[in-house]
This record gives sequence, structure tokens and C-alpha cells, in this order.
Amino acid sequence: MFYIGVDLGGTGIKAGVVDEKGEIRAKASCPTGVERGYGPVIADMAKLCLEALEKSGHTLDEVKSIGIGIPGIQDPATGLVPFCTNLGWHQVPLVSEMRKYIDKPVYVGNDATVAGLAEAVAGVSAGVGTSVFVTLGTGVGGGIIIDGKPYSGPHGVASEIGHMMTVVGGELCTCGNRGCWERYASATAIIREGRKFAEAHPDCAIAKAVGGDLDKIEAKTVIDLAKAGDPDAAMLFDNYVTHLCVGLVNLINLYDPEIIALGGGVSHAGQFLLDAVNAKLPQMVFYKTMPYARVELARLGNDAGIIGAAMLGAN
Amino acid sequence: MFYIGVDLGGTGIKAGVVDEKGEIRAKASCPTGVERGYGPVIADMAKLCLEALEKSGHTLDEVKSIGIGIPGIQDPATGLVPFCTNLGWHQVPLVSEMRKYIDKPVYVGNDATVAGLAEAVAGVSAGVGTSVFVTLGTGVGGGIIIDGKPYSGPHGVASEIGHMMTVVGGELCTCGNRGCWERYASATAIIREGRKFAEAHPDCAIAKAVGGDLDKIEAKTVIDLAKAGDPDAAMLFDNYVTHLCVGLVNLINLYDPEIIALGGGVSHAGQFLLDAVNAKLPQMVFYKTMPYARVELARLGNDAGIIGAAMLGAN
Repeated sequence: MFYIGVDLGGTGIKAGVVDEKGEIRAKASCPTGVERGYGPVIADMAKLCLEALEKSGHTLDEVKSIGIGIPGIQDPATGLVPFCTNLGWHQVPLVSEMRKYIDKPVYVGNDATVAGLAEAVAGVSAGVGTSVFVTLGTGVGGGIIIDGKPYSGPHGVASEIGHMMTVVGGELCTCGNRGCWERYASATAIIREGRKFAEAHPDCAIAKAVGGDLDKIEAKTVIDLAKAGDPDAAMLFDNYVTHLCVGLVNLINLYDPEIIALGGGVSHAGQFLLDAVNAKLPQMVFYKTMPYARVELARLGNDAGIIGAAMLGAN
Repeated sequence: MFYIGVDLGGTGIKAGVVDEKGEIRAKASCPTGVERGYGPVIADMAKLCLEALEKSGHTLDEVKSIGIGIPGIQDPATGLVPFCTNLGWHQVPLVSEMRKYIDKPVYVGNDATVAGLAEAVAGVSAGVGTSVFVTLGTGVGGGIIIDGKPYSGPHGVASEIGHMMTVVGGELCTCGNRGCWERYASATAIIREGRKFAEAHPDCAIAKAVGGDLDKIEAKTVIDLAKAGDPDAAMLFDNYVTHLCVGLVNLINLYDPEIIALGGGVSHAGQFLLDAVNAKLPQMVFYKTMPYARVELARLGNDAGIIGAAMLGAN
């Protein structure tokens, strides 16, 4: 049997036919066009599913289910998508709408949860029952896998790990609270601190790297300079890693996963990031002499969205 | 069938015979005498089990298993109790030692986890699949119940919710980190802040309530004055509730339970505490228009240890 996975984002839709091992057999994609409203977007999603299926050389009879990863959540009580800010969606009947086009079971999951499931099936957390996937991007998202299954909680609002408050009274977050972890552990945090530092120190290497145009400072600017040994960038990166580790330790103290997989833009810092995390984390975990989660880099990159969405139906 | 539950604490041991509904049929207890080492303590635990059984009028044939709640954890890899600070235990073979005396399956769980299980079986969280029990005592402990089962994680170190860092760089914790939630949400935190305030304001109502002997300030001193409308105590209590809610919101964002049950000394503040929490929490949760955990008072009090330990074998 095969599973179709759809990765629905604010700019693009991707669909893929995935086998039982989590390997993509064929893909198709198109722009989202959110301004059209949910009807045409969902029609396009169905079209992409059939397009990918045709490319794969398989038929609908061989498809068990369709899974959709969305930048939001589905309310398990109503079966509706209550809101997706990026899509402008509000109380959208995604499942029933999708089934108008293809008569297969449809599963919906949060995009970070789905990426975590992909890593658990076919990525760095494969073979491991309990894992947490952490995306370090514009924000911080999380995918919790417990005993091989994605965990979203009874109301579907679990795994909002980026909005775990770690610095009470700290930076104001988009959610209205202060001190959410994502204000300190996202790529956005590195950019903010890099710009702040460069503003105060116009002669620093960070400012020079962008020719004085501080708006051009990216997370990569700071990370690359830290890698190259620039002491200011190294200090900013070290501070970032401390905050990252605070949240990771909280995840360990609460979920005790076997693996924490780091994905998203910041994870492209690779072994440099892992080394920094592994230098700090052991002193911060509660049970210092007991085994605890290994921190690893996620492996599936952009395909995680399709694979994980598809695997929602395999659970 | 019946289940025997043992509540092993630093000062006393309690054992009880519990039926399938989580009701205690008979109890027995004795002092722990930790200074004797683990051998005699475990022998006493077995003796109490048989004593409670005899009192209950039932026989060992009717007992399915023995469960033990400990102020520590069991390492699922070794089956040993790696350490219990309160008991001076280090790598103790609790299960095998216990089975020398009574040939029944023996299950071991953390005391807060076990109390959470008790509330889920016979207390405020009965009938609810996913709940979190939070003890607000000297420290802050947690019992995570997912789909009716206690969740301790693959290494057994999950649910150390009191050591979730919420105030990076804050108060130094016994665990070596700074800003752990229990530094702000425990009874100890209320006492600390109450004493600090009374020291700075010797004429305040808190200082007067203890006749100027600030060592006598308890959490109850501050809470009772807050209840009575003293503005200083109310301010301290309000600050406490804010920190409490930070952790509760983190639990909601991570576990999304149906119920969060508050137990431990501070929970004796009762409806006054619940009202204060429910006034703050709605503004702090991430998904403001979605249903989320109800916060309730735990119901089983001191019996939770016996009931929950017993129920370890019913899962």
C-alpha cells in the first residue's frame, strides 16, 4: 500500500506518494495562492495528489489514505481547522472538503508534528519510540512522538514547544506572552541579537560582513562568523546555545525522549551547533548520571513535510 | 482482585490494600528509619503489605501485584533505583529485594507520578485520559498520565516538571540550574518571598502575624493574609500565581492535558487559589479560542500515594 502526503504551506503546496518505509515515489507541487480562499486551495491539493499518483505509476486502489500537514492544528472535537494565520483560514472543513475530490481517509496534522513523525519513520529518529523534533526557524515548532505515534493532546493543542516560557518577563512574543522559548531559540533570535550588537558596535565583524547594512544580517551571518572564530559572534552564538539548551532540558525533564532532532534553518549550522549543545547540556540536565536524550540533526529536510503527512495514515 | 500499594517516604512507610476502583480496604504504616539502610526498610515494607492484607480480610491469592511509590525514580534499563536523596539510597535493587518476601509482580513509580495515577483512577481526573498532577509543596513534582497510563519516559526521567526552567538566570535551584519553576511555584517560594518582604517591611501584616519571628512565616501565613485582603500578602500571592500559571501554561502547551490537578500544601488554599489561577490563565494560553485543560484541586490527599502505587499494577 501507499500513502499520499500533502505539505500545505503559506507559499506552496507539495504532494507526494510515499511507500510504507517512508520513501517518496513521486512528487508534485504548485503555489498556494492563499488569496483565493480555502476552496480552490483544497481543490489544488486534491489535483496534486492525483498528479503525484499518476507520476508514481500507481492507482488510487493502492492508496490507503491521504495525510495533510498544515501550519496550524485541527480541532479534534469539530474536525475543523480553527485557524491558520499563514493561510487566512478560519473554521475550515479541510477533511470533508478534501473528500469531495478523493474518497479516501484524510488525516490532518500540524506541520512540525508531521515533520517529527517523518524523522521517526524514515529519518534520524527511526527505530526510536519516543522522540521530539524541534524546528529552529522563524519560530520554534515541535513534533512530539510518543511510542511511535504523533502526540497532539486531547484538544490538539500540544507540542507548542516554542511558546513554552523560559524567560518570564523577557522578550514580547507574537502570542502575547513574554519570554517564550522561540524568542530566544529561533533563527529570528540570532538575527535580532546580531543586529542589536552590530548597531551598538558598528565596527564589529558582523556589521562588516553585511557592508554596514544591518537589515542584511541573517542567522547564518552570525553563525558563520562564530564558526570562523570571531569573538563577538561566538559570544552571541554561545548565548543562543544557552537559551536553546534551556528549552531542550525542559523537553528532557518533561518528555524524556530518546532523541531530540533539530531541524529548521539554524540546524544547518550542523556539527558546530551539535558540539555547542553537547558541551552545555550535560551540566543542565536534572539526572546527571542517568541516560537521557541524544540531540541529533534532523535528516529529511524539506521532504519531511510530505513523508510525515503521508505517515499519519500509517499509524 | 486486589492491589497492594506502598507509599515510601523519608519519614514513614504506608501500605494499603486497594480494590479495582482505587478504594483502600485496609492500611498499615510504620516509620521509615532510613538510617538502617535499604535492607531493613524493604523488609518492613513487605511486613506492612502482609499486615494490611490481613486487616483487609483477604489473602495473597487475591492480590495481583504490589506497587511502590518512591521519592525518586527507577531506571528502566537496570531495574534499580539509582538514587533517592531522602532515603540515602544508591543503586538499590528494590524489586528483587521486595520479591524475596512476597512472590508477586512488583512495580515501582515516582511518588508524584503515582499520585497523578491515583487522581486519574479515583480522584479529580477520573474518567479522563490525559491529565497532569502537580504537587505544590516543598518542591514541585508532577505526575503525567497519558491515555490513562503513567508516563515516565523511556529513561524514566520524565515528569520532572518542577525543574522546567521558567526564569533563565533566576533563583538558584537545588539541581544546580537557575530559574527552575519550583523556585517560584512551591510553598518554599511563598515562604521565601514572604520572609524577604517582612524583613524589608518589619511593620507589615506578615511580620505581625508571626510576632516578628520571621522564621515562623509559612506559606499559609501569606495565603491566609492574602485571603483576608492584606494588600502586601495579596501582592505576593498574585506574583506567586503568575509564576504558577507560567508553568501551567507550559504544561498545557506541551502536554495539552484535559485536567491539571493541583495538590500539595499550597493547594490547601483551595478555591481562592483556583480563582486566582483561572483569572490569569486564559490570557496566557496560546490557543485562546480553543478548549484547554481545566485546573482543579486534587482530591485524594495523603491516600493518593497508596492508591496510585497500587494502581501501577492495574495498568
